[in-house]
Amino acid sequence: MKLTVLKEFLNESISHVSKAITSKTTIPILSGIKIDADTTGMTLTASDTDISIQSFIPMEKNDIRVIELKQSGSVVLPSKFFVEIIRKLPAQQIEIEVKDHFQTIIRSGSAEIQLMGLDPEEYPIMPGIEENRRVQIPSDLLKTMIKQTAFAVSTNEATPILTGILWTISDGKLKFTACDRHRLASRETNIDVDADFSLNNVSISGKTMNELSKILPDQNTLIDVVFADNQVLFKMSSILFYTRILDGTYPDTSKLIPQSFQTELAVGTQELADAIDRAYVLSREEKTNIVKLVMRDDQSIEVSSSSSELGKVTEELVVSRLNGELLRISFNSKYMLDALKVMDSAQVQIGFTGAMQPIIIRPDEESSLLQLILPYRTTN
Amino acid sequence: MKLTVLKEFLNESISHVSKAITSKTTIPILSGIKIDADTTGMTLTASDTDISIQSFIPMEKNDIRVIELKQSGSVVLPSKFFVEIIRKLPAQQIEIEVKDHFQTIIRSGSAEIQLMGLDPEEYPIMPGIEENRRVQIPSDLLKTMIKQTAFAVSTNEATPILTGILWTISDGKLKFTACDRHRLASRETNIDVDADFSLNNVSISGKTMNELSKILPDQNTLIDVVFADNQVLFKMSSILFYTRILDGTYPDTSKLIPQSFQTELAVGTQELADAIDRAYVLSREEKTNIVKLVMRDDQSIEVSSSSSELGKVTEELVVSRLNGELLRISFNSKYMLDALKVMDSAQVQIGFTGAMQPIIIRPDEESSLLQLILPYRTTN
Repeated sequence: MKLTVLKEFLNESISHVSKAITSKTTIPILSGIKIDADTTGMTLTASDTDISIQSFIPMEKNDIRVIELKQSGSVVLPSKFFVEIIRKLPAQQIEIEVKDHFQTIIRSGSAEIQLMGLDPEEYPIMPGIEENRRVQIPSDLLKTMIKQTAFAVSTNEATPILTGILWTISDGKLKFTACDRHRLASRETNIDVDADFSLNNVSISGKTMNELSKILPDQNTLIDVVFADNQVLFKMSSILFYTRILDGTYPDTSKLIPQSFQTELAVGTQELADAIDRAYVLSREEKTNIVKLVMRDDQSIEVSSSSSELGKVTEELVVSRLNGELLRISFNSKYMLDALKVMDSAQVQIGFTGAMQPIIIRPDEESSLLQLILPYRTTN
Repeated sequence: MKLTVLKEFLNESISHVSKAITSKTTIPILSGIKIDADTTGMTLTASDTDISIQSFIPMEKNDIRVIELKQSGSVVLPSKFFVEIIRKLPAQQIEIEVKDHFQTIIRSGSAEIQLMGLDPEEYPIMPGIEENRRVQIPSDLLKTMIKQTAFAVSTNEATPILTGILWTISDGKLKFTACDRHRLASRETNIDVDADFSLNNVSISGKTMNELSKILPDQNTLIDVVFADNQVLFKMSSILFYTRILDGTYPDTSKLIPQSFQTELAVGTQELADAIDRAYVLSREEKTNIVKLVMRDDQSIEVSSSSSELGKVTEELVVSRLNGELLRISFNSKYMLDALKVMDSAQVQIGFTGAMQPIIIRPDEESSLLQLILPYRTTN
């Protein structure tokens, strides 16, 4: 392999694949970035076995000559050093030449770097994925759906399936569900698929989805999502993002969500979040995060927290609507803040079916976004 | 105590004293911020015993009424919670009222916070410092001098005196010196004092000087520095910053600095720093930080580092001047980068007195700024 490539393009490509670089691998070859060059361009590949990312650099882009290819070939270079040194090279033109035994010379300006490369034949081959089970999702919608659900996945590795976001497709609707033992987040959207296209039990690590979110393009382009038996492939214009499907059976969460409410209230999203945030500051010092909501009458609620050592935070809020029985209910303020933060409306609707039953938070009654929090059992 | 104060002024004052807040105190009262209010304004005090900071809020500023005082008084409030909750209060007007047993009520908008305050009588009294040993330094000069030396203090707590910056004044010159076993940084400046004013063995923690630097005003105002037996007080317009002088005798470092050189070279500061930075990336992977400088002839030098596992980085640099014997010398590249980063000139002068003797880096031969690095003994 011998070529020159423009630094900014190489750096951009490195930043894409770097999400899949790990230093904690037991497979030495995976601590490297694989580089393939041929007459179509350069492809960089990195993998930590959970995620694999390929990024493609074309020969030219917008009439700029990006790559000058002298000889096709492949090599695997040690990630950490390669990533850092490329960023620090003095000139825009970077020459990469692979010699015998994969010894690689990188030249830029007056700097010359010799690197011990590894044999690309030892690098795992990306899985061939059949494209017959494929959907398309606008990039910004996918980002929003990840943001609205990923925070609610379980962090408990004892139940790996719950560390993922569940993808389901039925009746032309795509739904994301995330839950741990204390809360649930779900978001639904219409999607352009055949009416009989259905998807079940596909759970993808919440952490991985957050990594994907970072490299999803900001422009509203369509992302191809291809489902295989144990892998999902996200296809962007110059990036392929492979991730594995989590093992296990995702529990049925549909019965957790109450169908009717004993009490419903509507209140300003930001006002409620700010009041709970203040109470949270105190409750966090107590390491409980417990905040109490007391419904005073059909016009006002009181948000409070107290600490035996520090004191008390109290705040009265005017609600825009409150129907039903007046309740006193305690909950984890951190969970409530997480839920309120992803509401996309100035007002939120909160539904209660009793002091010990799930609390449901939605932008409005017809919303495709739903957050559920289990309350705390407290004595007063 | 009962008053209202504008949030932005209280927050600014809190941010000043917060540098002295510690959570790791064995003296419970010091985990609080002391607030004193009288007809002149409010004073906030925080102390971690090494540093004490007082910040003053006037009754009015630029024709804005900042404080409405209803009753003078004092209280100590738990720092962490107080700092966070003030920042999150909903309204610009904050009312603070201290009741019986120092129970404190904070009101802002619809939020009410009850806080268990502590008795201000238990709070340590700030030392009375006689102002007869006092100098004035422009704020920006003091910042620069701290930046040029503080990085070179020792981090080894076994020799506490070396963890400080040494202040000396003689012959109308103020000098900062910092050194550990491997490098030394010094910076001198003319100062407006009586000819017989002298200062010896005043070493102030480098960490403390960095904290001071953060609250020094950006404008070029004069800072009063008052020296007492075991304390130094920095007086800014509305802030008093007290710090203790480190115990022990600072070693005489004057003999470390060579008076003449065997070899001298002049080279572009940024060019050299960039080349060493690239070599550093590789040397850091080896955990040695060793970079080699080889003088090829009177026009060029080679900067390189190598790693048995990863490879080699080599770069040739054209120098603007090189006099004397051609040397091969190895040094800690991190130390060299630190030294080059604080040079205030496009070119640096580097002086050598042999491969195993101290390396001296200065902006020019007459400079008041000097950096010294001890080389490494290497085999090739």
